[in-house]
Amino acid sequence: MEHKSTFRIPKILRIYAYYKIKWILSEYYSKINKVDHKSISMNTYTKYLMINTKKQRELINITEMVEDAVEEARIKEGICLVNAMHITSSVFINDNEPGLEEDFMVWLEALAPEDPNYKHHRTGESNADAHLKRTIMGREVVVAITDSKLDFGPWEQIFYGEFDGQRDKRILIKIIGE
Amino acid sequence: MEHKSTFRIPKILRIYAYYKIKWILSEYYSKINKVDHKSISMNTYTKYLMINTKKQRELINITEMVEDAVEEARIKEGICLVNAMHITSSVFINDNEPGLEEDFMVWLEALAPEDPNYKHHRTGESNADAHLKRTIMGREVVVAITDSKLDFGPWEQIFYGEFDGQRDKRILIKIIGE
Amino acid sequence: MEHKSTFRIPKILRIYAYYKIKWILSEYYSKINKVDHKSISMNTYTKYLMINTKKQRELINITEMVEDAVEEARIKEGICLVNAMHITSSVFINDNEPGLEEDFMVWLEALAPEDPNYKHHRTGESNADAHLKRTIMGREVVVAITDSKLDFGPWEQIFYGEFDGQRDKRILIKIIGE
Repeated sequence: MEHKSTFRIPKILRIYAYYKIKWILSEYYSKINKVDHKSISMNTYTKYLMINTKKQRELINITEMVEDAVEEARIKEGICLVNAMHITSSVFINDNEPGLEEDFMVWLEALAPEDPNYKHHRTGESNADAHLKRTIMGREVVVAITDSKLDFGPWEQIFYGEFDGQRDKRILIKIIGE
Repeated sequence: MEHKSTFRIPKILRIYAYYKIKWILSEYYSKINKVDHKSISMNTYTKYLMINTKKQRELINITEMVEDAVEEARIKEGICLVNAMHITSSVFINDNEPGLEEDFMVWLEALAPEDPNYKHHRTGESNADAHLKRTIMGREVVVAITDSKLDFGPWEQIFYGEFDGQRDKRILIKIIGE
Repeated sequence: MEHKSTFRIPKILRIYAYYKIKWILSEYYSKINKVDHKSISMNTYTKYLMINTKKQRELINITEMVEDAVEEARIKEGICLVNAMHITSSVFINDNEPGLEEDFMVWLEALAPEDPNYKHHRTGESNADAHLKRTIMGREVVVAITDSKLDFGPWEQIFYGEFDGQRDKRILIKIIGE
């Protein structure tokens, strides 16, 4: 009985416990604060699609392939870049309607026609029009990912536009987010 | 007195304290190291704007609405994606000058004219030219956020381009960053 | 001897140690879990390039300047936004071939010709065609960074397209990622 009354927690341990508890609480409060700010850690995911079109010019709906990549990435909130890795092809978003696809091809031929007289052809190339067509349609799209899915409007679909095909081409998908 | 001299901090506590202090110091140094690398935590912010234009074709300056979203997001450094969620409208950056807006509309009509003969119209639609006009103007912009603000050049303004309007359309704003 | 047998680690310390060890283990497992999810911390990097072209219209290969920025950013995985900060100039990706550059300029003049009659010129400006040309070529590119490098296809090069130059213009580079 007398013994118990004389025992004290050593001072060094008391000081240690005091600062330790303060530190634990500060961690706790900083975590609460981070939640307020929706703090999350960043992940990235990279995927390459290989495409070899049957025709020299072709539009291919790649929406499902991009959706697969988003699922594989297991990213909940972020953005998804999809770009052609070649300079005679495009990635763009429009309507999945075969009539409109025909319209696009006719229209591109009017705006950027095939022609033997492009200066680019002095190099032995014959595809200058494909470089111009791809410029109209665009190289890339950036799509929001919300709640683990491509955050699309009602009719948005992702297309690969090939203007000088029948050979291996690559599409890059880069996802960054939570 | 004799009692005090025989008391020792139990060995297990001494070992625990030794490793604990090492661990605290390692945490401290790893935090310093992270600061060196400008480590920050990632946040995302998503907002949808609803637009219903009075005219069938119209350009609307949405810069302030995007600035509001950037402020709400409380993100200091990052990027801001703004895209039309519909495939007959655009988001683009250009000059806030009414004369130029008229020039854009005349020019788009020349490059992608209204015409009853588009293949897309076999579906009952009559807006193929709107799909083409939007392709020229672009679906999206990606803007840097620096020091909590859109990092703009002197004349950059964000526009929504409607080419088949008079109905509810949505614009998506996705912000990711610190 | 008798003394030793009566000494016990105070209950408060035993309880503290019990929860502390649980907490340390939970931290340890949460760290392992984060590694599984490729958790990384986010960094951003911002750089401005100043350009003053000798000619009024000019295409300039800026790939090396963007590569320098990516190296300075020390970001391993992420994306790189490169945009013109002025509304009469472009940033785009295409082939580094002088013949094709000439083709682009001729083609842009056909699609968006110089003309004194643009409405924009009522303001005293004379560069409406430059606004249109830049719209065709695009304001910005978003490029993936993989393994600390621009993740490019075999021929991709980044160009600055100036359509109303001979004065100071700026290009913004914003990099976000690990």
